[in-house]
Amino acid sequence: MQAYQKRALAVCDWLAGLRRRISVRLVKGAYWDGEIKRAQQLGMPDYPVFTRKTATDVSYVACAQRLLSAASTLSPAFATHNCRTVATILELAGDRAFEFQKLFGMGDALYEALFRSKAVACRIYAPVGSFTDLLPYLVRRLLENGANTSFVHQIADPGVPLGELVADPLEQLPEPYVPDPRIPLPRDIYPDRKNSLGLDLARRDVLDSLHRRIAAEKLSPAPPSIALDSAIGRATQSFESWSRVPAAERAAVLERAADLLEERMLDLVALIVREGGRTCTDAVSEVREAADFCRYYAFQSRKHFGQSQLLPGPAGERNELQLHGRGVFACISPWNFPLSIFTGQVAAALAAGNTVIAKPAEQTPRIGFESVKIFRQAGVPEFVAQCVAGDGEVGASLVADPRIAGVAFTGSLETAKRINLALAQRAGPIVPLIAETGGDNAMIVDSSALPEQVVDDVVISAFQSAGQRCSAQRILFVDAGCAPRVLQLVAGALAELKVGDPAEPDTDVGPIIDAPSREALLRHVEKLRGSARLIGEAPLKIEGNYIAPIAFELELDQLPRTEVFGPILHVCLYQRSNLGEVLQWIRDTGYGLTLGIHSRIDSFVDEVVRAARVGNIYVNRSMIGAVVGVQPFGGEGLSGTGPKAGGPHYLPRFATERTLTVNTAAVGGVTELLTRT
Amino acid sequence: MQAYQKRALAVCDWLAGLRRRISVRLVKGAYWDGEIKRAQQLGMPDYPVFTRKTATDVSYVACAQRLLSAASTLSPAFATHNCRTVATILELAGDRAFEFQKLFGMGDALYEALFRSKAVACRIYAPVGSFTDLLPYLVRRLLENGANTSFVHQIADPGVPLGELVADPLEQLPEPYVPDPRIPLPRDIYPDRKNSLGLDLARRDVLDSLHRRIAAEKLSPAPPSIALDSAIGRATQSFESWSRVPAAERAAVLERAADLLEERMLDLVALIVREGGRTCTDAVSEVREAADFCRYYAFQSRKHFGQSQLLPGPAGERNELQLHGRGVFACISPWNFPLSIFTGQVAAALAAGNTVIAKPAEQTPRIGFESVKIFRQAGVPEFVAQCVAGDGEVGASLVADPRIAGVAFTGSLETAKRINLALAQRAGPIVPLIAETGGDNAMIVDSSALPEQVVDDVVISAFQSAGQRCSAQRILFVDAGCAPRVLQLVAGALAELKVGDPAEPDTDVGPIIDAPSREALLRHVEKLRGSARLIGEAPLKIEGNYIAPIAFELELDQLPRTEVFGPILHVCLYQRSNLGEVLQWIRDTGYGLTLGIHSRIDSFVDEVVRAARVGNIYVNRSMIGAVVGVQPFGGEGLSGTGPKAGGPHYLPRFATERTLTVNTAAVGGVTELLTRT
Repeated sequence: MQAYQKRALAVCDWLAGLRRRISVRLVKGAYWDGEIKRAQQLGMPDYPVFTRKTATDVSYVACAQRLLSAASTLSPAFATHNCRTVATILELAGDRAFEFQKLFGMGDALYEALFRSKAVACRIYAPVGSFTDLLPYLVRRLLENGANTSFVHQIADPGVPLGELVADPLEQLPEPYVPDPRIPLPRDIYPDRKNSLGLDLARRDVLDSLHRRIAAEKLSPAPPSIALDSAIGRATQSFESWSRVPAAERAAVLERAADLLEERMLDLVALIVREGGRTCTDAVSEVREAADFCRYYAFQSRKHFGQSQLLPGPAGERNELQLHGRGVFACISPWNFPLSIFTGQVAAALAAGNTVIAKPAEQTPRIGFESVKIFRQAGVPEFVAQCVAGDGEVGASLVADPRIAGVAFTGSLETAKRINLALAQRAGPIVPLIAETGGDNAMIVDSSALPEQVVDDVVISAFQSAGQRCSAQRILFVDAGCAPRVLQLVAGALAELKVGDPAEPDTDVGPIIDAPSREALLRHVEKLRGSARLIGEAPLKIEGNYIAPIAFELELDQLPRTEVFGPILHVCLYQRSNLGEVLQWIRDTGYGLTLGIHSRIDSFVDEVVRAARVGNIYVNRSMIGAVVGVQPFGGEGLSGTGPKAGGPHYLPRFATERTLTVNTAAVGGVTELLTRT
Repeated sequence: MQAYQKRALAVCDWLAGLRRRISVRLVKGAYWDGEIKRAQQLGMPDYPVFTRKTATDVSYVACAQRLLSAASTLSPAFATHNCRTVATILELAGDRAFEFQKLFGMGDALYEALFRSKAVACRIYAPVGSFTDLLPYLVRRLLENGANTSFVHQIADPGVPLGELVADPLEQLPEPYVPDPRIPLPRDIYPDRKNSLGLDLARRDVLDSLHRRIAAEKLSPAPPSIALDSAIGRATQSFESWSRVPAAERAAVLERAADLLEERMLDLVALIVREGGRTCTDAVSEVREAADFCRYYAFQSRKHFGQSQLLPGPAGERNELQLHGRGVFACISPWNFPLSIFTGQVAAALAAGNTVIAKPAEQTPRIGFESVKIFRQAGVPEFVAQCVAGDGEVGASLVADPRIAGVAFTGSLETAKRINLALAQRAGPIVPLIAETGGDNAMIVDSSALPEQVVDDVVISAFQSAGQRCSAQRILFVDAGCAPRVLQLVAGALAELKVGDPAEPDTDVGPIIDAPSREALLRHVEKLRGSARLIGEAPLKIEGNYIAPIAFELELDQLPRTEVFGPILHVCLYQRSNLGEVLQWIRDTGYGLTLGIHSRIDSFVDEVVRAARVGNIYVNRSMIGAVVGVQPFGGEGLSGTGPKAGGPHYLPRFATERTLTVNTAAVGGVTELLTRT
């Protein structure tokens, strides 16, 4: 018998006397460390995140207590190789029925000792499956058991006293409880700014109040149009004073706007759901992204515009570089992120010291006006940010105006090209155009990928927001070897998607933005029905401007070379030996916005990354949902001009640089030389 | 008698016995601390720069010895209030004639003691003049006498022993001699790169070898034109491999190019003088600027392209931002800086990972080919940087080619606008245009400025390089109060300018680039002769493509609103109360390249700086000669698109950004959480 087995038996014996002293307290929820990631991504400060292993141990006990208290309707089972947990369960269970579970080959000594002293049910389980299925499981096991805090690790270490090994976890928690300061809570994961607040849509009370708010949302009449010419005139007159507001003050205004966006979360979600037809989940993300943009650009403004950058040079001369606003910026945004893209463009232009004429999409004017209202509440003067509603003609007049000193645009490639041409045809200076356009985005899945993970991410990437994101997946390249299983799962997942009213919390896919868009998509689907193999489609049980998410299998040369802006997935099988052809095909589209890769082989990932000319690449996750400052967003080639929104190079493009050189020796001498010698 | 006077007398007495022991050694040249600035600006590592006051003291003695040894032809005079210096001069002079000079009211005790013991001539002088003339002199005096190392300061300090006060300066120098490490030598003034080497055109031997080299320069036939289409094709094919060369390697190649430029200084100066018609001084500055560009962009490339920027985000995810080349860049440069602008554009494009088709101006193709040859010698592969000669039509074909992924252009506004329109009319992606164009640059002089300083800087700014710099001064706004004196000096300075063969070392102003340009300038001068008051002009004693630098006085509404690219200065008098009108006039031109300010009143400088929308502002110095990394260069409005050449935001504009997001938790867990707890 090995030393650690002897120790295990000793612990069991010792615990027998201790069992009654084990204290149990209910801790809310049951989560493991992986939850930290999700909570951070959701930005929820009150999400029950365990930053200490001891808290997880307590939670285990609390959950056990809950399960056992429902033992009449549930058959509780407890998987553990930890003798303290075993003792605790025995104590909590009393006479109630339950079973233990242990992994085949582990904890043998512990359970032998247990069987010797007490009649208890124990199921022995063993993972069974192919290498590909087992790999992630084994890696996680290695990580867990290798950790210093692991029971399996500690029991084998004679330096750890038995008392410590079986100590009451509650007693090990700090009193009063504070999270481990080494693991930042969701609100604090960024070094330079607050993370945005989320909304926990898994909570019944939150859902209820959101639902009431949406139901009460009556879309007011579209805001009245204002005269473009005089709006630009006022913005021009306001530029001088706004550009001289210190950057720190402009930043503070943007941070107030971020706070207001969070405070008005429910109102904004309701408006986005109603005017934009987006689901609640999408709408919450949008409000968060808008707040993130405000805080990120506020930080960047302080950093780059807050003070001059001193440049090294010869003695007797002071050289500084400063960034300044350019003038009136036109911000033209789309309907698919009616709040966040609108707000992001305006925040960037303001942060850099420009005044703004912002034109929301004609489908979603109310949200644009609401955003500008929030900026004004936060302290942006009236004529520094103005919203003008209207169609493409209003946009055309806007960019053709010689007083417009720069344009930020997100939308179709065709419109971006028209704007660029209009700007080039204007008399006067050459002004910047920052354009984010479309993509023909693919995900490449190799045979080592985990099909379940792949399909989860495909469903999110291709069908969330009804595929109406520029980042959305249009094409799935899947290795022929694993294609049958992956496509079977895709078909199954499609069958489960709920297409419906975005106000309903269980809706996965909302409507298409307008009838012409829907008709174009339906024509595309009809064409595919005639020429491609149907993989699966979602049920469509609702009347209105909806289409059913759908997937087809096509040959490489049948794949679309332009953006199909809806929930239609084009699947193409490939052989590993033909990967080069696939990569070349993607490059030949000329687009370069997003790319997904699913693989557990690093060299495969590297090969694809090296060949890609794509702005945002995502490995082993979905390819949508770029977070401000974390995944700066924007493509290359036909997909956009750069610089990336929510990235460190964005603000300088809204600015002009000035150098100031002062001959400090002109007044009579080089004083710094005297102070140095 | 005050204490310090007693000490002075004691020192004198003491020195009487010491005089014969004073050792004197010849030190090269005689300079003061202000020379450090000039030497740093000239980048000369062997320039005799004194980084220690003691070295200056030794130099004084050395110069005294030289003067006294020529006492038969010179009448040496020694201004000093330092008793050790007095003793030294007395010792060195022996029987030779000389005089001392002392400032009225200073050193009285010293000279009283001296007169008592020895018959010696001493002239007492006093500065006389108006407040404006005296101010800089007084400031310098205050700085000097206030310094701890000043004799005047030390003799009044009873804590300083007499022995120390009169110590032999040679014994105080470190042996072997090293410069004071706290004052960087010219080669080392930048923290991240070497300063470029200069050429000391004040040295006879340097001038002689340069002159021989220029005389030997036979302009070879213009290089043969190569087929544009296949050149672009080869550049396109070479992009992939060059863009994957690690940034550190690309940087090392550029640094080798900088070293080669310095090594080939004489050849390049000769070529620039002959093909570009630039003076030797201008040509040396150009070679230095070209080397500076290479080293600056090498540093920037290492910094921004060398490794990914890790972005903060949630646990279980790795996010990185990378910069990559865009493809084939077209670099189109002008004749007025045929080496430095050409080399700078190419170096930037290469540093960012692009391949390059570079078109030099049709007037200066040889210099362009020479630059590319140096890049290749330094290790740039053949098809990564190619030079194509030709006129505007070649340029037009170049930018119209869909394989061109970006354009860097320096030249006229009209051409920049044409390029921009051609790019906008192309099918395919919207590509970057980085354009530096012209200016209508003014200097504003207020009544507190020192007229001599002003005129020195006006002559440099308006007439150096025959006014053929985009930064050159076109307009002088001078306060009516000081205008008579300033304009008198301008006229005098013009009369002294030598217009002539740029190969001659004493030539101030070389030729106009070509006959059509000269004729256009002459037409402008003729018009001015009929409508404006002539202030002065340089004598013109040479046949050829020259015009005489000239200055006219005009009313505000007569001033040119477009760029006059030659040595023609337009002067306009203003009243302080009408400064706002002047500033508005400058803004109304729409240009914003350079602006000079001469004033000794901070609030005046601030007012002008705040009102200016100008890329490069220079206070109390000339407004040309921007140094890479020290005065990042480029204007706004009609003067250019930005970002500034030789500045920190330049390289990213040649690049595209990519974000890589890896779900590190997909393999089985969030390892960083385990290592943190």
